Amino acid sequence: MIHDNGGSVKHRAAFFISDRTGITAETIGLSLISQFESINFNRITLPFVDSQDKAMEAAASINKAYEETGAHPIVFGTIITPEIRQIVRDTPCFYLDFFKTFIPGLEQELGVQSDNAIGKIHSVGNMNTYNTRIDAVNFALNYDDGARLQGYEESDIIIIGVSRCGKTPTCIYLALQYGIQAANYPITEEDLDELKLPKALQPHKKKIFGLSIDPQRLQNIRSERRPNSRYATPQQCMREVRAVEKLFLQENIPYITSTNLSIEELATKILVISGATRRIR
Amino acid sequence: MIHDNGGSVKHRAAFFISDRTGITAETIGLSLISQFESINFNRITLPFVDSQDKAMEAAASINKAYEETGAHPIVFGTIITPEIRQIVRDTPCFYLDFFKTFIPGLEQELGVQSDNAIGKIHSVGNMNTYNTRIDAVNFALNYDDGARLQGYEESDIIIIGVSRCGKTPTCIYLALQYGIQAANYPITEEDLDELKLPKALQPHKKKIFGLSIDPQRLQNIRSERRPNSRYATPQQCMREVRAVEKLFLQENIPYITSTNLSIEELATKILVISGATRRIR
Repeated sequence: MIHDNGGSVKHRAAFFISDRTGITAETIGLSLISQFESINFNRITLPFVDSQDKAMEAAASINKAYEETGAHPIVFGTIITPEIRQIVRDTPCFYLDFFKTFIPGLEQELGVQSDNAIGKIHSVGNMNTYNTRIDAVNFALNYDDGARLQGYEESDIIIIGVSRCGKTPTCIYLALQYGIQAANYPITEEDLDELKLPKALQPHKKKIFGLSIDPQRLQNIRSERRPNSRYATPQQCMREVRAVEKLFLQENIPYITSTNLSIEELATKILVISGATRRIR
Repeated sequence: MIHDNGGSVKHRAAFFISDRTGITAETIGLSLISQFESINFNRITLPFVDSQDKAMEAAASINKAYEETGAHPIVFGTIITPEIRQIVRDTPCFYLDFFKTFIPGLEQELGVQSDNAIGKIHSVGNMNTYNTRIDAVNFALNYDDGARLQGYEESDIIIIGVSRCGKTPTCIYLALQYGIQAANYPITEEDLDELKLPKALQPHKKKIFGLSIDPQRLQNIRSERRPNSRYATPQQCMREVRAVEKLFLQENIPYITSTNLSIEELATKILVISGATRRIR
């Protein structure tokens, strides 16, 4: 996507540089540059910049980008060690220093010194949290696509919807981000003909959450998977979506439509609306 | 975990408040408070604070936390709309304003106004990116635990290791975060006896990445799953780990040890070491 601003295209390099995974730096940086749609950013993530050598390599990349674009690269940094950070800062860049910006104020407010330790956020940390996430991911896989019909009492939530409406990635994200044990179950044509919840799910109705989707979008997704099948026809998609929404209403099942939502948004909305309790926070 | 600092325990409420998913606010906030281990933070995430009513509710929660702890709650905010933000700021809190802190400097450097639009970072955005992530998640599930022996040419990476060393969550994270098509394959006792790569994998050796684990940790994990089985004995775990590492060395397969790494760290390290190309960025 290249925008033309008054005759000159605006190109910039955006670096996300960290002494650990770079996930925080990237989250911060993407969030900020998303506010400038008129600029065409070339994004470069440099994780594990944890030595002077690696900092010199990073500095070389920044210098190169500066020469190529003729503009100061924007650098989103979460480097803790001052000597390493300084090597990166000593380049012709616009450096946004995440920790340096916020830590001094926090130290003053909290009345203690910060620990100045690198990469705590995405480290293993609490082993319970780690195990909870892994267990939740395993749960999501074991209970994906109606693979098991027993053990639903262990689930925190059961997501239902027609085939290809986004159930699986939503369950996996709920597991990874929130430690929630999410099962998912595909509503079949048979269920829709009878307009009834599948038997295995009936005792767990309170945990059920519905996912719907725009029929046109469903058709696109299904066509990529099985072109020219009945499954992917406009009529079939429309019929299934109408029926499943009718089922949700009839059974008083809360539901949302996945069409314009990212996986993160779907998962978070479901968390909020269902009132399910996060197992990690 | 409660710390005693000079006779008084330090408790604080930490709020992560956003007009969208709150994932950015939480990432930022957790990253900052992880630098203050001596404080016992009570964490509260409030997503979708996108109306004056919801802002008032958030303000009430902050006021309550202030009364309970006797200290200003720390608020990590990514609220774009000024009127909504102001309601939250008008509480007895220490407000760290993510956008207000960084956007003005960026506007000046970039020479354009920011779009001032809420929640762009975790919205669907580019539909290609969305599809790539979903495809990658589906790929990881289809090729989980050696479920398929054909089609490995479609994979970006194949992670191998003994049962329960962390292959599955790593593959799923690679899919969600980076859009990478990651297969995983469990190395069985038979493979280890022969000290050979499984036949199905041999043509794809360049894409193979090894995962190892501390035998003691493996034993703990396996014991939770199948207590008192041979599979979970110290001897068995030790034997398998030694043999698989020997196989990695013999076959020149790069590998890392999962023991002290989070899912994020595992995935990012594998990305860097393998040189695999991100499909989303």
